Amino acid sequence: MNLNQLEENIISKKTFLCLGLDTDIDKIPKHLLGKDDPVFHFNKLLIDRLSKKIAAVKINTAFYEARGVDGWNSLEKTIKYIRDNHSDLFTIADAKRADIGNTSKMYAKAFFENMQFHSITLSPYMGHDSVTEFLNYENKYAILLALTSNDGAVDFQLENELYLSVVSESQKWQNADRIMYVVGATKSDFLLKIRNISEKSFLLIPGVGSQGGDFENVILNSTQKNKRILINISRAIIYAGNDEDFLESSEKVVDHYNSRTSF
Amino acid sequence: MNLNQLEENIISKKTFLCLGLDTDIDKIPKHLLGKDDPVFHFNKLLIDRLSKKIAAVKINTAFYEARGVDGWNSLEKTIKYIRDNHSDLFTIADAKRADIGNTSKMYAKAFFENMQFHSITLSPYMGHDSVTEFLNYENKYAILLALTSNDGAVDFQLENELYLSVVSESQKWQNADRIMYVVGATKSDFLLKIRNISEKSFLLIPGVGSQGGDFENVILNSTQKNKRILINISRAIIYAGNDEDFLESSEKVVDHYNSRTSF
Repeated sequence: MNLNQLEENIISKKTFLCLGLDTDIDKIPKHLLGKDDPVFHFNKLLIDRLSKKIAAVKINTAFYEARGVDGWNSLEKTIKYIRDNHSDLFTIADAKRADIGNTSKMYAKAFFENMQFHSITLSPYMGHDSVTEFLNYENKYAILLALTSNDGAVDFQLENELYLSVVSESQKWQNADRIMYVVGATKSDFLLKIRNISEKSFLLIPGVGSQGGDFENVILNSTQKNKRILINISRAIIYAGNDEDFLESSEKVVDHYNSRTSF
Repeated sequence: MNLNQLEENIISKKTFLCLGLDTDIDKIPKHLLGKDDPVFHFNKLLIDRLSKKIAAVKINTAFYEARGVDGWNSLEKTIKYIRDNHSDLFTIADAKRADIGNTSKMYAKAFFENMQFHSITLSPYMGHDSVTEFLNYENKYAILLALTSNDGAVDFQLENELYLSVVSESQKWQNADRIMYVVGATKSDFLLKIRNISEKSFLLIPGVGSQGGDFENVILNSTQKNKRILINISRAIIYAGNDEDFLESSEKVVDHYNSRTSF
């Protein structure tokens, strides 16, 4: 999927939502624990129920790695299920990787070639050649952390406006049209500054939902020239309910956010 | 293992070397490919042969993830083998992780609780609360990227001396005595600056070997007050040979570097 298609999907589905699958086996409804691979089963049920009302799915690798080989299996089954059954969903490996070139090449192989994610989140700390390998793939995207939604964002990202340097410098790199940016919703005042220097870029915006960012404000500040944003919500959707009716509870949260979105 | 024990091991073994297991199934000697799990087998042979002449082992997660579930299996078997048979080796998960708190907690679970690595490399971009969860473990260590060995280090790390801010800021964090730093050998002129503000910290120094950093200069600039460094070499050791005698070739490289080290 390319970014024009993603934007068209957002407009036709009337949703900016990205479903964050931070799936913790200790938090999913207890009645699913008897299933073969309960994490995959939970993910599958959520995706099937919500796919028409969301634009993207973000899978947070940490929650899968925490279960070792079993978790990596759930991860691979989940992304394959989406590819095979919901090809209109843009997929994000929320992996926060990046390393020297020959190592990044291996991460690109894992996430872009083997699992065929459309995109991956990357830390920009190591600079251009830690990202290059991810930009060599047509219709695949590198999502650089610019300004994150956690308290620690003030430690280095705001120092000397590093977050703005990350955006402006990375736009000079080869294949920069394959770069997207993470911009935390909890820092929506800074969103305008980033938007001003990245008009055409897609932004992935976490921090709405459990982390408390202002949904309407985020949209107002980032969609004046196009609809190129994804707003990720993880825990507030996937753990909205905890019993047999959990899918209904999750869908209500999705409907709530979509109803506050005007196109 | 705590850092005093690691330093004692370095002094008694007379080696600063960290063996980097960037094990690529396409690059290991062909005669091993018939073995059950050739990557684990290759790692095991190298570790058994070199364990008395090295202080630490660094496992680069990318090379394992690139092989999916099979690769994750090789990773788990390798770390377990070291734990069970070579408990004097300090182990490093070279994973370059870090994320918001509840996600970092999952990475800490994966690498510190399940696989029981002694340490993990982390990108500092997201700040203190992306590292906190890793610092909650006694005798476990977070190795923050300060100045890396790749060309892209100039893009953001050297801008406004960000790499020095990372070192000085992080030393104010709670449990800062559990923080180590990555400092690329290819930037040995900057090593002194970092050493001046991190006298007691352990430094993990990549970039010698295939990447061309100056071995003697690195040691001179970083061990004036103590022996708290690890010099990582990956490809130059593990791919030194490619036939039945590959272990001998690898050992020669290790001997070569250790012979240039005076204690």
